[in-house]
Amino acid sequence: MRSSTLIAASTLALLPAAAAVAQPKPALEPGELERLRGVVAQIHSEALTQRQTYGLLRDLCRTAPHRLSGSPGAAAAVEWARQTMVRLGLERVRLEPVVVPHWVRGEVERLELLEPLEAAGRLPILALGSSVATPREGITAEVISVESFEELKERAAAAKGKIVLFDHRFDARLLNTFAGYSKAVRYRYDGASEAARVGALAAIVRSMTPNVDDVPHTGNMGYAEGVPKIPTAAVSTKGAERISRLLKQGKRVRLHLRLDCQTLPDERSFNVVGELRGRELPDEVLVVGGHLDAWDVGQGAHDCGAGCTQSMTALALLKRLKLRPRRTLRCVLFMNEENGLGGGRAYAKDNADELGKHLLALESDRGGFTPRGFTTNANPGARAILDAIVGLLEPSGAGKLISGYGGADIGPMAASGVVQLGYLPDSQRYFDLHHTREDTFDKIHWRELELGTAAMASLLYGVADLKVSLPRNPPAKKKD
Amino acid sequence: MRSSTLIAASTLALLPAAAAVAQPKPALEPGELERLRGVVAQIHSEALTQRQTYGLLRDLCRTAPHRLSGSPGAAAAVEWARQTMVRLGLERVRLEPVVVPHWVRGEVERLELLEPLEAAGRLPILALGSSVATPREGITAEVISVESFEELKERAAAAKGKIVLFDHRFDARLLNTFAGYSKAVRYRYDGASEAARVGALAAIVRSMTPNVDDVPHTGNMGYAEGVPKIPTAAVSTKGAERISRLLKQGKRVRLHLRLDCQTLPDERSFNVVGELRGRELPDEVLVVGGHLDAWDVGQGAHDCGAGCTQSMTALALLKRLKLRPRRTLRCVLFMNEENGLGGGRAYAKDNADELGKHLLALESDRGGFTPRGFTTNANPGARAILDAIVGLLEPSGAGKLISGYGGADIGPMAASGVVQLGYLPDSQRYFDLHHTREDTFDKIHWRELELGTAAMASLLYGVADLKVSLPRNPPAKKKD
Repeated sequence: MRSSTLIAASTLALLPAAAAVAQPKPALEPGELERLRGVVAQIHSEALTQRQTYGLLRDLCRTAPHRLSGSPGAAAAVEWARQTMVRLGLERVRLEPVVVPHWVRGEVERLELLEPLEAAGRLPILALGSSVATPREGITAEVISVESFEELKERAAAAKGKIVLFDHRFDARLLNTFAGYSKAVRYRYDGASEAARVGALAAIVRSMTPNVDDVPHTGNMGYAEGVPKIPTAAVSTKGAERISRLLKQGKRVRLHLRLDCQTLPDERSFNVVGELRGRELPDEVLVVGGHLDAWDVGQGAHDCGAGCTQSMTALALLKRLKLRPRRTLRCVLFMNEENGLGGGRAYAKDNADELGKHLLALESDRGGFTPRGFTTNANPGARAILDAIVGLLEPSGAGKLISGYGGADIGPMAASGVVQLGYLPDSQRYFDLHHTREDTFDKIHWRELELGTAAMASLLYGVADLKVSLPRNPPAKKKD
Repeated sequence: MRSSTLIAASTLALLPAAAAVAQPKPALEPGELERLRGVVAQIHSEALTQRQTYGLLRDLCRTAPHRLSGSPGAAAAVEWARQTMVRLGLERVRLEPVVVPHWVRGEVERLELLEPLEAAGRLPILALGSSVATPREGITAEVISVESFEELKERAAAAKGKIVLFDHRFDARLLNTFAGYSKAVRYRYDGASEAARVGALAAIVRSMTPNVDDVPHTGNMGYAEGVPKIPTAAVSTKGAERISRLLKQGKRVRLHLRLDCQTLPDERSFNVVGELRGRELPDEVLVVGGHLDAWDVGQGAHDCGAGCTQSMTALALLKRLKLRPRRTLRCVLFMNEENGLGGGRAYAKDNADELGKHLLALESDRGGFTPRGFTTNANPGARAILDAIVGLLEPSGAGKLISGYGGADIGPMAASGVVQLGYLPDSQRYFDLHHTREDTFDKIHWRELELGTAAMASLLYGVADLKVSLPRNPPAKKKD
């Protein structure tokens, strides 16, 4: 009931004011939406009774819990994905090569608060991806705490020869936790180089979460050119608050940091690809995927095992229901999203000839939580169609279509005019476990996961089986 | 953005077709909605930074984890609630008497599969509330398994002298898990009497959950008049499937059941009431609440500690923000929802003189999960206002207002024309823990819980501070 008013409202909103008196041209041909409503119900029943995504994700988490690019675990994940796609009956299953960085955490990662003595003790950290190691004996120095790069600049003199703690609080008031993450993440990515510019010896960053707890969150960082590479790690939010509190009390705080992570030579890896070939227009392609690599702690259950297994299951489920759409659905499990985006870039480059017939790409990389809807950058014509189809998902709670980003891996296709879509689950729990040891299979709820699969399969089938092709976005102008 | 189209669409939908050409009269006076939008943002920031509900709920779960009506734990919960309301600055804090049943689980509850020997072993059960005990030596008998009352009638002769297992599967395909519960729950409530009618010795019911696991779910049952009272318990879904599988293989399955639960004399207990008095129209009242009693296993964290602490915090938060509305907000924590509804009935009866000025009652009793919106039975005039206000909650995901039931405790007020509202969180996880040992504080997510508080506080403030009073529903016609 609510979904039909939603569709009407959204469609109207896209019309220029002058045309508002005329009857809006329906986005879908007569009867298409009604038929699709029945298919959507069928897909949801199948997902909730077969529970296939959940079984596949358990299997991935057991087979390759640690699968950072270049690791043996990543190779295991690639082989698992290939074999699983074959077993599920996906078509034209193949590996597409990707060159990936190979960073390893090493054996030692240790942050110790040495002074003041009454507060001495170890603080929970994780080295950041791409960080260099400390010297073998570690770094022992005073720490200063700053809340922003601006504050660091003001206190540049005080930072010299010290360890810098970026204690920027994740804004818990923002309703979507990804908004808090976006505001905070530059301290993780750029913190080391900004600290090095003012002569610091190492950089510690407060973990990216609205929670206050003892769980450190890793993630990638990057070194700016022409600046010394200093070691860097994330400390738990409680650890960060402990240091800052002591400093605010006017105490001198000394830390000892030791990391022995390192970057090894690049490795060869793969995107894993499988299809459900279109029955009428097989050259028109809709991509769906997530990233197969994951951090080397936890099991990458939500990030992004959920998205990978939802994508595979969406195709398998449609095939099992004999719902082969007019156009081709292509599942792409991308390698190296976490620390390089090699897979996303390689896919767009190596399939450049085909991108002109890629209508959309859908990524699931926000966890496997209860569904809310989708984000998209679709042009108005495509948006009207997507609004109508997504409106059918209102009963499961996935009926929201909002403007936004699709996903990192599919981003490199955007310039070619491929409509970007991101699956949007509820965000409240995601930063409890993002890039931590907590991101394990027991944090997955089977119904929430399968409802995501069903929402994605419904949207993909709906668009891939349209009588008229979804209008692509205007391609970006090429730079000369 | 989306919220404004939603409001427009919903408002239009309520108009008779003939009036559709005219400009619809806005539900709220000019400027009211815009001012409220700012207040809603303020309420959400306060809830997400203070995290007060979460602290109160931890405190309740520690102080009175087991608080079934008539128990010492229930008395502790009443005293905790009274003291906490006073501490929070709620006004006119008081206890309103309720007579409650007093059922106790006892020390022994045991279901053993005796034959076939190769499958022998204990199965996880919980006695159902109000059940009688077995004889001291227990009941040892063959079991038959039925999926429905219809099947039981057909196989009445086979049930005589046996234990009946009601192995009715919770329909996992239903998107809202409460729909599955509604379809299944009659086997828990009426199963014993239906089994007794055909001469069975005891009744076992499959636990009410879409999961297949080892967690038994208790809940209340009732004995029909003129039928022997036989003992009854819920078995875990895996336990139920084990029995049914053996029977389908043609095996004779014998069980041994022992329960020593009993019903003691009624006890005196209380609803706990506190207010935020209205600044202009204090006699016009909006009720908000949950039920203070909970089953005697787990901690009643989601059912209904969440709803109780959300209701208390909603008022405390508004008071702290100096948002005292025109009308009175009254928090009522009802006693005895789980096995009698004594508190809900007593409130409606003992406050009958005031109900004519009760505009609405809002109950939170569907758990403390991430928000979706509200359900209501509001008349069209009230609905238009509620649609506009609830539309403001779209950013947190609580923007949905759908037709439906408010809650069991506030139900007795419905006949007087009090508009019924139920807070609607996401339902996917609720039947993992409903009425089980799993319903503990660690299953609460602080952001999800606080977003519920914020949604409830926003709605309550919005309606209580309107220039025009929310139109009440037409009272039900009195039976002669």
